[in-house]
Amino acid sequence: MQLIARRNEETEGTTQVQVGNAVFGGPQVIVIAGPCAIESYEQLLATAQEVKRLGATVLRGGAYKPRTSPYSFRGKGETGLEILAAIKKETGLPVVTEVMDVRDIERVAAVADMIQIGSRNMQNFTLLSEAGRSRHPVFLKRGLAATLEEWIYAAEYILAEGNDQVVLCERGIRTFETYTRNTVDITAIPAMKELSHLPIVLDPSHGTGRWSLVAPVALAGVAAGADGLMIEVHPQPSEAMSDGSQSLNFKHFAELMQALNPVARAVGRKVMA
Amino acid sequence: MQLIARRNEETEGTTQVQVGNAVFGGPQVIVIAGPCAIESYEQLLATAQEVKRLGATVLRGGAYKPRTSPYSFRGKGETGLEILAAIKKETGLPVVTEVMDVRDIERVAAVADMIQIGSRNMQNFTLLSEAGRSRHPVFLKRGLAATLEEWIYAAEYILAEGNDQVVLCERGIRTFETYTRNTVDITAIPAMKELSHLPIVLDPSHGTGRWSLVAPVALAGVAAGADGLMIEVHPQPSEAMSDGSQSLNFKHFAELMQALNPVARAVGRKVMA
Amino acid sequence: MQLIARRNEETEGTTQVQVGNAVFGGPQVIVIAGPCAIESYEQLLATAQEVKRLGATVLRGGAYKPRTSPYSFRGKGETGLEILAAIKKETGLPVVTEVMDVRDIERVAAVADMIQIGSRNMQNFTLLSEAGRSRHPVFLKRGLAATLEEWIYAAEYILAEGNDQVVLCERGIRTFETYTRNTVDITAIPAMKELSHLPIVLDPSHGTGRWSLVAPVALAGVAAGADGLMIEVHPQPSEAMSDGSQSLNFKHFAELMQALNPVARAVGRKVMA
Amino acid sequence: MQLIARRNEETEGTTQVQVGNAVFGGPQVIVIAGPCAIESYEQLLATAQEVKRLGATVLRGGAYKPRTSPYSFRGKGETGLEILAAIKKETGLPVVTEVMDVRDIERVAAVADMIQIGSRNMQNFTLLSEAGRSRHPVFLKRGLAATLEEWIYAAEYILAEGNDQVVLCERGIRTFETYTRNTVDITAIPAMKELSHLPIVLDPSHGTGRWSLVAPVALAGVAAGADGLMIEVHPQPSEAMSDGSQSLNFKHFAELMQALNPVARAVGRKVMA
Repeated sequence: MQLIARRNEETEGTTQVQVGNAVFGGPQVIVIAGPCAIESYEQLLATAQEVKRLGATVLRGGAYKPRTSPYSFRGKGETGLEILAAIKKETGLPVVTEVMDVRDIERVAAVADMIQIGSRNMQNFTLLSEAGRSRHPVFLKRGLAATLEEWIYAAEYILAEGNDQVVLCERGIRTFETYTRNTVDITAIPAMKELSHLPIVLDPSHGTGRWSLVAPVALAGVAAGADGLMIEVHPQPSEAMSDGSQSLNFKHFAELMQALNPVARAVGRKVMA
Repeated sequence: MQLIARRNEETEGTTQVQVGNAVFGGPQVIVIAGPCAIESYEQLLATAQEVKRLGATVLRGGAYKPRTSPYSFRGKGETGLEILAAIKKETGLPVVTEVMDVRDIERVAAVADMIQIGSRNMQNFTLLSEAGRSRHPVFLKRGLAATLEEWIYAAEYILAEGNDQVVLCERGIRTFETYTRNTVDITAIPAMKELSHLPIVLDPSHGTGRWSLVAPVALAGVAAGADGLMIEVHPQPSEAMSDGSQSLNFKHFAELMQALNPVARAVGRKVMA
Repeated sequence: MQLIARRNEETEGTTQVQVGNAVFGGPQVIVIAGPCAIESYEQLLATAQEVKRLGATVLRGGAYKPRTSPYSFRGKGETGLEILAAIKKETGLPVVTEVMDVRDIERVAAVADMIQIGSRNMQNFTLLSEAGRSRHPVFLKRGLAATLEEWIYAAEYILAEGNDQVVLCERGIRTFETYTRNTVDITAIPAMKELSHLPIVLDPSHGTGRWSLVAPVALAGVAAGADGLMIEVHPQPSEAMSDGSQSLNFKHFAELMQALNPVARAVGRKVMA
Repeated sequence: MQLIARRNEETEGTTQVQVGNAVFGGPQVIVIAGPCAIESYEQLLATAQEVKRLGATVLRGGAYKPRTSPYSFRGKGETGLEILAAIKKETGLPVVTEVMDVRDIERVAAVADMIQIGSRNMQNFTLLSEAGRSRHPVFLKRGLAATLEEWIYAAEYILAEGNDQVVLCERGIRTFETYTRNTVDITAIPAMKELSHLPIVLDPSHGTGRWSLVAPVALAGVAAGADGLMIEVHPQPSEAMSDGSQSLNFKHFAELMQALNPVARAVGRKVMA
């Protein structure tokens, strides 16, 4: 069966997905940056202003956080969404945030310019279908153990509802290696370009789990043809309520942005608008 | 932090979970059997009567089916639940069936004696919490790429809501091997007995993906200490609407039940009441 | 191409491999037991006498040990072989020991009744071919990341030299799970019975990496149809020079042997001659 | 224990390994190119001349080929080495070729400027030690299921013999993904830069198994900090005796080399001398 999500002989180029002023799938490499979790108005504002200044064009920040343990910090929920809305207004940056519960889609979509479906929910078919019906751009992360084939089918659940505004995100798969949190499947980027027409973004923060490895892997992603990057940035990573070890501080994020431009140009792309 | 789901120095034995007349975690090895998907009243009735006659004490059958492709048969939904209710009444067998959407929990729990959370939803934390709040016995399958540690934390989401009626189910993990659909992690059975007090069941049908391998792996599960088995049985596997290649026909299920008894006795258990 | 190692329509039953008085592939479940590494005459003698008394019919013990680090204890080498020869004479038990270097095959084969090719060398094609030419029974462990298909081809390297005395050994594969050292692929046992006519043995010691899990997994192996077991036994596991955490002491080995008999009988086999 | 192969506080930069005029670990990104297997004088000469013209500075070509099946083409052996010696003389390119048998090391080292130890032999400890004693530069590929830790220990076997001329090569690990032959662990490049002082090369040909994915993954490797690339090139990939599907033809190799230069410059390196 011919899937809508799959590239066929007639498909040309990449589907463009517009989120605020950012266009995924165009000549620009879009940088999404921000903290793993929204912790406070001040934290998110400081981060948003800094990443915007340095060239990021989409803000990330989690209000609902999927956590292995029920006793970990699971996000600020509705309060987090309110902070997100305020910072969006303040900075003008479009925002992406995760939704975990079908019953929250409307609430999240009222604030978010793009709704994220996380790795653990890549085969939560109910959530995929409802995200499709929402007509909102969807940021679909690859499951920890999902094949490229299964990932395309997950996207198809959204497209089958008439919503083709889907951005794929490679964020590492689970393997036997323990030095890194996950194993970034860099080949997934050109492979998905062959198999699908949807834009694809790399998340080297979750992919590596170590901040010192984020920059070189981010550069690799752009060299391999990624349409964007999602980078966790925190004013003080060591104090972060989640994922501190993989978050860049402002200085390291600035260095990454500086290193990114020449690599993007080397493959015929650009980072800054 | 001490988890409720984890065995500690004071925990003795296995938590018993009662589903109809079947008690998981007691001396009996509970056999759950039935078709992958509920296809019709006739199909489910014929299967239920036969597996009951042969010693199964819980009936399985899917009304809502998680499928990789949105275009595959996704179950009969509410009609399926109605058939399930009718067969339950007809045969007296308690039933277990999967729930994929938090909004369906009440509807499913009105029929099912135990609600199943499938592999793909093992970290659907919303669903886990709501299943906990339902106070219904929960059948929690291990995720395809979940460590034992993460599986215990998933159970904890249910127990943290005050519901300790949780049965774990090993159903194979994803590895590089392609001859089998998944790789049954047989060691997970005694390992989870060490780590947790919850009863554990093996599903060799999904675990192997090949009907010819189901019986030997089922025997292995019982020898390793499993508290039960979940076996896919279909009147005509080659005509099944899903998972036909891993379903036993009545004759093969009868042979398995016959082979099971001596192995259960060899490890101090029994299959028949 | 039809491989010699593969079962075809005309193949019946299992190829029998005779090692001393032990016959792999016959009605008896053969128990190979002994220490990971030969440490001293006294250690090996005490272990050999005890495992023989309890029903083991083949002795294991490593003289050449493959170790991740060059600075770990790598076995006693030729001295180890001399000890092995002495204990073999003393107890009458046939012995199996690993060979890692083609240049050692003759020396090892002069003592060993069966030469072992370890996991790390499963695709050391030179070693496989030379082991084939040696005409000695070969104990071929599955590689950590080898598919069933590749394992059969590895056996084919030996059979292609005219040597069909090959015993396969499942010893766990590498997956993402970290609680256990490896993941025992229990389904490999009945799967290889379908695919090949060679006898197959399970090594739950390396497979689990934890002595407390060895017995239940050993029972599972026999229930699944294994032709034998390889069990690491040490007089004082906590003092072992390698693999202590997965070795049984004499008491636990005795308990395993007692538990094994009824399971073997339940599947129509026996452990004792 | 402090390993020689590991970076410590006093280590600065990368150990340089000289192979002919090529220096691994210096400012230049070294391109090793050539056919998977040496098939004929004409094939190797044509390939060598073309890759040299396009900027490769080391020639690869296998005389001894590790093959899953004993019935596949296993290389031309000594004849292959003779061809390699002739082409080396003819073109002036230094050569790297695999050795699989300790008994062949001298013979291979007489021709090869660098001897390759392949993935399947990464824990063939005998071969590692002998390669260390040979004092020849060693090209050490990562095993299919080897952790970074184990890879460092494998290198240590060589360094412990007093030979620090070791080049590491990431060539993909084995995962559940089946679209690609292996999964390139791109993060291994910066991770090994953190953990070790040895130069590291990427092999996107084996890593991806598909020629169409080789170029983007090669660019990613350079962006991530690789000291070199190993690329399979064949005059007519569709007629290759092995690995044709992952080999570039001359045109595609030329395109890769052209794309490579700007990426190398973007990360402060260069490809051409």
